[in-house]
Amino acid sequence: MTSHKGIIIVVSGFSGAGKGTIMKELISRYDDYALSVSATTRDPRPGEEHGREYFFVSNEEFEKLISENGLIEHAGYVNHYYGTPRKFVEDKLNEGKDVILEIEIQGALQIREQYPDAVLLFVMPPSAKALRERLVGRGTEDLDVIEKRLKRAQEESVGIEKYDYIVINDDLDECVERVHGIIRAAHAAPSRNLDFINTIRKELNEL
Amino acid sequence: MTSHKGIIIVVSGFSGAGKGTIMKELISRYDDYALSVSATTRDPRPGEEHGREYFFVSNEEFEKLISENGLIEHAGYVNHYYGTPRKFVEDKLNEGKDVILEIEIQGALQIREQYPDAVLLFVMPPSAKALRERLVGRGTEDLDVIEKRLKRAQEESVGIEKYDYIVINDDLDECVERVHGIIRAAHAAPSRNLDFINTIRKELNEL
Repeated sequence: MTSHKGIIIVVSGFSGAGKGTIMKELISRYDDYALSVSATTRDPRPGEEHGREYFFVSNEEFEKLISENGLIEHAGYVNHYYGTPRKFVEDKLNEGKDVILEIEIQGALQIREQYPDAVLLFVMPPSAKALRERLVGRGTEDLDVIEKRLKRAQEESVGIEKYDYIVINDDLDECVERVHGIIRAAHAAPSRNLDFINTIRKELNEL
Repeated sequence: MTSHKGIIIVVSGFSGAGKGTIMKELISRYDDYALSVSATTRDPRPGEEHGREYFFVSNEEFEKLISENGLIEHAGYVNHYYGTPRKFVEDKLNEGKDVILEIEIQGALQIREQYPDAVLLFVMPPSAKALRERLVGRGTEDLDVIEKRLKRAQEESVGIEKYDYIVINDDLDECVERVHGIIRAAHAAPSRNLDFINTIRKELNEL
């Protein structure tokens, strides 16, 4: 049990399933959320900005963050490090925001160990074919990278049952509302309302 | 894992917290649900109808139901039996409806054992004082029965953490929508979407 008001929301999903778009839209619609920005050692893609999509850091800087316990999770993926800076997450949770982490399964499971209260979502395409079409349509990667990502999707699909919820990205608008509904529902778990429950118990004893 | 499309939704809560009203309203708003009608050996209250609020049966008839395995749970409460007839629940689940059971904690835990997929909701008043006011305001019971119910609420409050969600009945309209949202979210659990997940896995392997 943490005493935070906010919840950590871990969002994973096959590359190309659209999790980034869903989360951006969710945050623009509702005030309840803060999006964690990961640190990475990979190079920026065209249009990506330091501090917005990622904090782009060197291997050396990344390893320093690890050694200082400055990351709440980190993992390697396609020859690069990715990790979640601790301070931003803790600050936002303390402000009562639900903090959204877009990370993959290794990191997700690290988060669950440290924050048992975290909610784990897995974003899926409506079909494998739709996934390949999106990856190809994005036009940012060579076909061999796309094949690598599809292979990775295959591997990641083994871990889906470790997540609390799956979200099928068939329609962006509906999908965003479904994610919002899932997170609102998560707030109704007894473990996230212990203060209220204990107050009622005390009141009932005093009646 | 059951192969049902529908989910069992168990709704408990302190007597007077308004669970009956919330569920009636939920069912009138949405087509997704079916309300299970319990069997009981208690006498009907004014305005209650056999087959609508309860199936009012004799002790003998109730015990026959038990011996025939015709109930998916049963429990004693304030000197009377209450139980859930199996056939209606199974039929509705097979039709794809979410079946709502208004039962108390002993029965709720029996359900969870038989249907691990069931979602357990606990309806709470905004405060203990509000609960007493509602019980008194209802005007259907003597003060000593009300005191018994408040004592019972105290006892039941010990079990709240065994439920998946609490719902605070502060405003009927919002509360109904919150319950609907919680149940919709529950449908997004991986365990309730194994067919879809396995299809995607198969497709990814065949790409």
